[in-house]
Amino acid sequence: MSGTRGVLVSLQRCVFVISGQGQGLFRSKRMSTESAVKRCLRTYSSAMYRSAYSRGESVSVLGSVNRAAKMSTVSGKETGLLFRQLLDYKSYTYTYLLADPVSRIAVLIDPVIDMVDRDVALVRDLGLDLKYAVNTHVHADHITGTGEIKKRVAGCKSLISKVSTAKADVHISEGDVIKFGPYQLDCYSTPGHTDGCMSLVLRSEGLVFTGDAVLIRGCGRTDFQQGDAGKLYDSVHTKILSLPRFFKLYPAHDYTGQTSSTVGEELQHNQRLTRTRDEFIKIMHNLNLPYPKQIDKALPANMVCGVFDASQ
Amino acid sequence: MSGTRGVLVSLQRCVFVISGQGQGLFRSKRMSTESAVKRCLRTYSSAMYRSAYSRGESVSVLGSVNRAAKMSTVSGKETGLLFRQLLDYKSYTYTYLLADPVSRIAVLIDPVIDMVDRDVALVRDLGLDLKYAVNTHVHADHITGTGEIKKRVAGCKSLISKVSTAKADVHISEGDVIKFGPYQLDCYSTPGHTDGCMSLVLRSEGLVFTGDAVLIRGCGRTDFQQGDAGKLYDSVHTKILSLPRFFKLYPAHDYTGQTSSTVGEELQHNQRLTRTRDEFIKIMHNLNLPYPKQIDKALPANMVCGVFDASQ
Repeated sequence: MSGTRGVLVSLQRCVFVISGQGQGLFRSKRMSTESAVKRCLRTYSSAMYRSAYSRGESVSVLGSVNRAAKMSTVSGKETGLLFRQLLDYKSYTYTYLLADPVSRIAVLIDPVIDMVDRDVALVRDLGLDLKYAVNTHVHADHITGTGEIKKRVAGCKSLISKVSTAKADVHISEGDVIKFGPYQLDCYSTPGHTDGCMSLVLRSEGLVFTGDAVLIRGCGRTDFQQGDAGKLYDSVHTKILSLPRFFKLYPAHDYTGQTSSTVGEELQHNQRLTRTRDEFIKIMHNLNLPYPKQIDKALPANMVCGVFDASQ
Repeated sequence: MSGTRGVLVSLQRCVFVISGQGQGLFRSKRMSTESAVKRCLRTYSSAMYRSAYSRGESVSVLGSVNRAAKMSTVSGKETGLLFRQLLDYKSYTYTYLLADPVSRIAVLIDPVIDMVDRDVALVRDLGLDLKYAVNTHVHADHITGTGEIKKRVAGCKSLISKVSTAKADVHISEGDVIKFGPYQLDCYSTPGHTDGCMSLVLRSEGLVFTGDAVLIRGCGRTDFQQGDAGKLYDSVHTKILSLPRFFKLYPAHDYTGQTSSTVGEELQHNQRLTRTRDEFIKIMHNLNLPYPKQIDKALPANMVCGVFDASQ
């Protein structure tokens, strides 16, 4: 069986391994899924799994299996991505915590300085190994928590786009990937709200984190910080709204109490982005929004991971 | 093949049907999943699917298939439950919208009167058939949106527990189920915060909606509205925290910006509910919380679906 790819399927309390040719390779007796999977793994040479998963194939029903497969994961009890959406009520910012349930490696997207206590406590409660704290862009409405988090979580690195020119441990550009266990966030450059805006796509789960490029039924403003409505329109249509329609869309902000949308929904119902490019530019130029309250503190702080130099 | 149960599995752009005995029944050539599934359904008698799904078996990878299977669902593009979490910033209330993506039948849990515009617009955007608007209990902190929603959405019924003695179209009790498509919410009586508190369990998806019985790292107060700390402790431990540990837990409120938890997490980290019963009662009796601001308006309104009688 070495080299044969297989998929674990659970049905009627039996576990099957089905080969890439649809051949039934293994069928356990009726037993708890956990016992069945253990037996399955003992029966087959580890070579099969190395082969199956070296190509990054994910398992259908029973969640990710890797060489250090933990039974609690493959038993189906903790399948797939660990995902939490967190909110800062003051700036209406959404922070996202993503983790691989097997390796416990975690990524935090757009953490806010005022909520670092909560976020670090949650990472610890869940027994996660927080490796990356990413900013989708240099925020103007809140101070990032990445600097503070790095002080408290050993080994955690801050990430932001190279184009933003902000300080961080790692600078990301289009085409880069952020890996955590078998998962990866693909980095896309989506300028227009700012030059350095990135959107992150978790293809295997059908998720896109759009920062301020796309908001639910809206989009980020383009009247400061290198804002450019035409550029935003192009970014959004070529990189975000071109994704499969069922992809779930998670923005960095929402002001109406909605927590997510989908690419398809925005293609149908987003009153700004469904217009023509010229109409969109006209709308964006006539928004007449007030000056953002936090901007004079947030921008300089966010150029340095939100970390204040006591000597300044 | 009539009467044989099967599971649809997608692997390497082929679609397989695997029988309950692990036998490969069908394998398509490499083609788009949607085409493959169409071919699969044509090849097999519909009797197989009636048999497979009359027992409520859900499909592994490709989402739910029912008798009126729509190809967009079985293609894997819109698999499984449609679920949205919505927030009212004023009362920190979470409203939940659940729907079957095939029949479009939807349920709304704990809608808030101030957010009815948003909720009805979302139901319409998503092309849903909102049948039920449920209150987990008679809320003291906000006025329910169920009455207003019923005026705007023809055929939508309001639900609340019989024990609450509040007016509604349908009174639910422990053991009742709220069905929408192939999904069902099992109703559990979880008194203690109020006598009429219900928790709703969507077993097939591993979700529990706890109202105010369990909050993330906390629980509802027990100092008014028939509150009883001992009763709450018993309810929570026998009906909610006895669920599988991986079940996701969605409360009616959160004040720290968290959106969900799991049964396992609360069993480990909830500082109140992990105590002994006596310790818990002592904690709850010494909370010394301020009188809820909205209570004098909310309680009488929520006894009548939030609908104000102009003659009063």
